[in-house]
Amino acid sequence: MAEENIIFVGKKPTMNYVLAVVTQFNSNVDRIVIKARGKAISKAVDIAEITRHKFIHEAKYDSIKVATETLQGERGESNVSSIEITLTR
Amino acid sequence: MAEENIIFVGKKPTMNYVLAVVTQFNSNVDRIVIKARGKAISKAVDIAEITRHKFIHEAKYDSIKVATETLQGERGESNVSSIEITLTR
Repeated sequence: MAEENIIFVGKKPTMNYVLAVVTQFNSNVDRIVIKARGKAISKAVDIAEITRHKFIHEAKYDSIKVATETLQGERGESNVSSIEITLTR
Repeated sequence: MAEENIIFVGKKPTMNYVLAVVTQFNSNVDRIVIKARGKAISKAVDIAEITRHKFIHEAKYDSIKVATETLQGERGESNVSSIEITLTR
């Protein structure tokens, strides 16, 4: 059965997330969603590109979506951009 | 006639680029491509989202593409991710 997994990109090194994506692909997951907000968006793109070019050459972009999320903080609301990159093999 | 303009995102403040995109849309350009590399990718997403949410509400994403570019530097080649966001109205 096709499974879908979501990877949230945070402050860890890029290669940690690449390893997570590659591990998922190698354990029968067909579709992986990489999500990131704010400055981590650039890292999410790096993760997807490194995965495709160096490790899982048959992985393809199913969709790339961007949006704005509203965060509730101590000083009120703030807006942050987000990205959702879906890779399939 | 439909025109297409390209905006390269660099080190200037986000709102400078938003203003450039909005100005283009308001002067009869129907399609704008926002390009960025490396850490500027997050800023490119911010520019597109701020343009759509605050200024040009009818602007839509035509495509979002990511790629890897190889740069020639003094110390040899290096790879950098890039994004190309196409907005239409």
